[in-house]
Amino acid sequence: MSQFTHFNKQGRAQMVDISNKEDTVRVAVAKTSIEMKKEVYEQIVRQEIGKGDVLAVAQVAGIMAAKNTSNIIPMCHPLPLKAVDIVFEWKEVQYFYKLIIEVTAKTKGSTGVEMEALTAASVCALTIYDMCKAVDKGMTIGKTYLVEKTGGKSGHYIRE
Amino acid sequence: MSQFTHFNKQGRAQMVDISNKEDTVRVAVAKTSIEMKKEVYEQIVRQEIGKGDVLAVAQVAGIMAAKNTSNIIPMCHPLPLKAVDIVFEWKEVQYFYKLIIEVTAKTKGSTGVEMEALTAASVCALTIYDMCKAVDKGMTIGKTYLVEKTGGKSGHYIRE
Amino acid sequence: MSQFTHFNKQGRAQMVDISNKEDTVRVAVAKTSIEMKKEVYEQIVRQEIGKGDVLAVAQVAGIMAAKNTSNIIPMCHPLPLKAVDIVFEWKEVQYFYKLIIEVTAKTKGSTGVEMEALTAASVCALTIYDMCKAVDKGMTIGKTYLVEKTGGKSGHYIRE
Amino acid sequence: MSQFTHFNKQGRAQMVDISNKEDTVRVAVAKTSIEMKKEVYEQIVRQEIGKGDVLAVAQVAGIMAAKNTSNIIPMCHPLPLKAVDIVFEWKEVQYFYKLIIEVTAKTKGSTGVEMEALTAASVCALTIYDMCKAVDKGMTIGKTYLVEKTGGKSGHYIRE
Amino acid sequence: MSQFTHFNKQGRAQMVDISNKEDTVRVAVAKTSIEMKKEVYEQIVRQEIGKGDVLAVAQVAGIMAAKNTSNIIPMCHPLPLKAVDIVFEWKEVQYFYKLIIEVTAKTKGSTGVEMEALTAASVCALTIYDMCKAVDKGMTIGKTYLVEKTGGKSGHYIRE
Amino acid sequence: MSQFTHFNKQGRAQMVDISNKEDTVRVAVAKTSIEMKKEVYEQIVRQEIGKGDVLAVAQVAGIMAAKNTSNIIPMCHPLPLKAVDIVFEWKEVQYFYKLIIEVTAKTKGSTGVEMEALTAASVCALTIYDMCKAVDKGMTIGKTYLVEKTGGKSGHYIRE
Repeated sequence: MSQFTHFNKQGRAQMVDISNKEDTVRVAVAKTSIEMKKEVYEQIVRQEIGKGDVLAVAQVAGIMAAKNTSNIIPMCHPLPLKAVDIVFEWKEVQYFYKLIIEVTAKTKGSTGVEMEALTAASVCALTIYDMCKAVDKGMTIGKTYLVEKTGGKSGHYIRE
Repeated sequence: MSQFTHFNKQGRAQMVDISNKEDTVRVAVAKTSIEMKKEVYEQIVRQEIGKGDVLAVAQVAGIMAAKNTSNIIPMCHPLPLKAVDIVFEWKEVQYFYKLIIEVTAKTKGSTGVEMEALTAASVCALTIYDMCKAVDKGMTIGKTYLVEKTGGKSGHYIRE
Repeated sequence: MSQFTHFNKQGRAQMVDISNKEDTVRVAVAKTSIEMKKEVYEQIVRQEIGKGDVLAVAQVAGIMAAKNTSNIIPMCHPLPLKAVDIVFEWKEVQYFYKLIIEVTAKTKGSTGVEMEALTAASVCALTIYDMCKAVDKGMTIGKTYLVEKTGGKSGHYIRE
Repeated sequence: MSQFTHFNKQGRAQMVDISNKEDTVRVAVAKTSIEMKKEVYEQIVRQEIGKGDVLAVAQVAGIMAAKNTSNIIPMCHPLPLKAVDIVFEWKEVQYFYKLIIEVTAKTKGSTGVEMEALTAASVCALTIYDMCKAVDKGMTIGKTYLVEKTGGKSGHYIRE
Repeated sequence: MSQFTHFNKQGRAQMVDISNKEDTVRVAVAKTSIEMKKEVYEQIVRQEIGKGDVLAVAQVAGIMAAKNTSNIIPMCHPLPLKAVDIVFEWKEVQYFYKLIIEVTAKTKGSTGVEMEALTAASVCALTIYDMCKAVDKGMTIGKTYLVEKTGGKSGHYIRE
Repeated sequence: MSQFTHFNKQGRAQMVDISNKEDTVRVAVAKTSIEMKKEVYEQIVRQEIGKGDVLAVAQVAGIMAAKNTSNIIPMCHPLPLKAVDIVFEWKEVQYFYKLIIEVTAKTKGSTGVEMEALTAASVCALTIYDMCKAVDKGMTIGKTYLVEKTGGKSGHYIRE
């Protein structure tokens, strides 16, 4: 059975030793979403046509958070992030509008980029909440999860 | 109808002017959760009885993220955070275990602490994912939302 | 004659004592510019019409830098930034295009926001350079200076 | 008997609530030292006469660390730092030279600045170690402690 | 014609993929300047002879900014900075004094260090402004530009 | 005789060039301690048995500081930290209790990890001070020093 690796001999938290792991290209894809009323959706879309683009700000926030992940997540190793891309997709769900946020992160390093992709996705959604909360405080950030990862010893993972 | 406030006359993003708003005590409560297999749950709980405490690390991460919120969320004002508290509750949901994370943030300032509470909740959940992902990459961070806020001109908000 | 205030009795750098200064509203306006070939100008403008908006990214960078100023400039006091606004204006100058960047920063605090406005302006210009340097490494960031400040004991300043 | 205040009802770490505490001027003085061989001492002093000033760099590092304290120390509240001053004094101790580092930090806020003063002192000493370690890895950072604090409900403290 | 690379398929900002680029030694040199009245010049130079050295503080600020560049400039990749050097030169220009600031940055990585050199130069000039603004708010930061870069696929660049 | 390397041709501080140094595994071990009254010792130990674990928070702080070292120490190179481990040991010394803190840091890079280990040790001790200072402001952080380092051109160092 696999074991937690984040603990030392005293049973305390440590940053695990990855100095023996090889530098390979590793990719991770994470997803989240944010659900909002039609009113908020329409303002986001309309502003975008103007120039005040909520999604542009959220994207910058997500990319900067990806680069900052090892300072945000305590046991996460710093790694040389090589690419981050965030794409958006709108869905109408009954009376609500849902913005799906998908982040792809890539490194050439000795550990995976799952946390960078997940952190970028969360921060992207939080930024949208921040910019629209004057209109609706009831927006909900949806489930956040890893979609896929490739590279590294643990191999290819695809969420079922 | 309420309008987005994060845009300037050119239709571009700005950090809105709050210099006229009064300093009052403001509180926000946010919630999220993380769902995992029994195997992960048991390891978290067992380690806790030892000394390697996943939740202790997550809590520190959440509190530090609350203090760092205005650097993570682009249009969010810096404010003097006066208190942050994070409480955990386990729930068994069919074949899964769900850890509910509730964050209370407090300030005495001229704008609300919703973003601090939400960011702390998200980072807390992300940290738990990070520390347990060697055992299960399929863990899912649940819905993340504002539960309640008090203080400030927009008054008392309770999620329906 | 006015004296440098950033030095202590040993003649070394210090962060000067502002604990006796009153909290008042203070505003600072700073300006910079970036000069580029027509080719770069056209790509910026065209992308903007699409959705990839160089100026939107630069604006977020500028606002985040304003909030981060006291961590970037060693002797600068942290202060509660209340508003930051950045506006752009294009000028054709002979064979070149010049983007003028004007930043207004506001606080209600015990020291001025000149450094916040100037730092935001510089970072805004640097971000535009970064995003366009694949097309033209010869772009030049123009003069950077304080346009005006109000509030505080030293009173109203307008650049001649 | 006084109690730890950094724990919540679940017995977990929290950032304690200071929203009821008044904003008053608070001062803290901390001390540390670094002991080194004559050879290192002489190089520091000689460089200083030239222009490469180890102590100037250390002082900047200490002041920046003071401003960054609430991001370095997990349960420490952010506060509006109003002044930081660092003074140095050399002592010859038998075959060694000892640099005494004294930091004074000041705020007008609702909690004390002990941690800011102590963190600045430690980082100041660490920076001197960093800049001189090519000459001597055996340098020792001496005892680090709070010398005095004034302001706040707990009143005046002077180390015996 | 060369194209902007900072945009993804949706036309939005991304951090471009550099995982295929080789790690090579790359150097960039950037320049800026700051112009001031004789009075300020004299105080800087005199203080320097004492011990309060404006330029020493500015240099530390510039070097720290170089290391922090990928957190300040949104689409900039993190890279392992191997060296940063900043040199100063004074020029008398009619009734003014001009301090020329030249920064050389070096990496062994998969992307260039232009932004690190430019950011260090800007922050160096901003720090000088900060420390002297009590004497003269009219100081002007001069043109900021890339002087030269070597290494990487795009080859050797020298500003005409 | 070895020379300071942190100065450039103008005699000013620089970040020294390490682009020619090879990437090898490097390890550093640093030690510090914190001395406290029996009363504080007992509260730390008792809380630990509950769940509010001072040492767990201190350990997270130490690990995060190790990752943040090149932002805290001005002339310190950023490096890919591969492992950090912190172990604690209690000692009764006459009427006092002393907590010994030992940090091991590891990289595979072109410069040593001494500063990462030392900074983590200091921040770990400072965090314990912060969390217990409500009970005793007289706690003293003990001597802080490098115990051992391996890897790199300067070879194996063991403190005498």
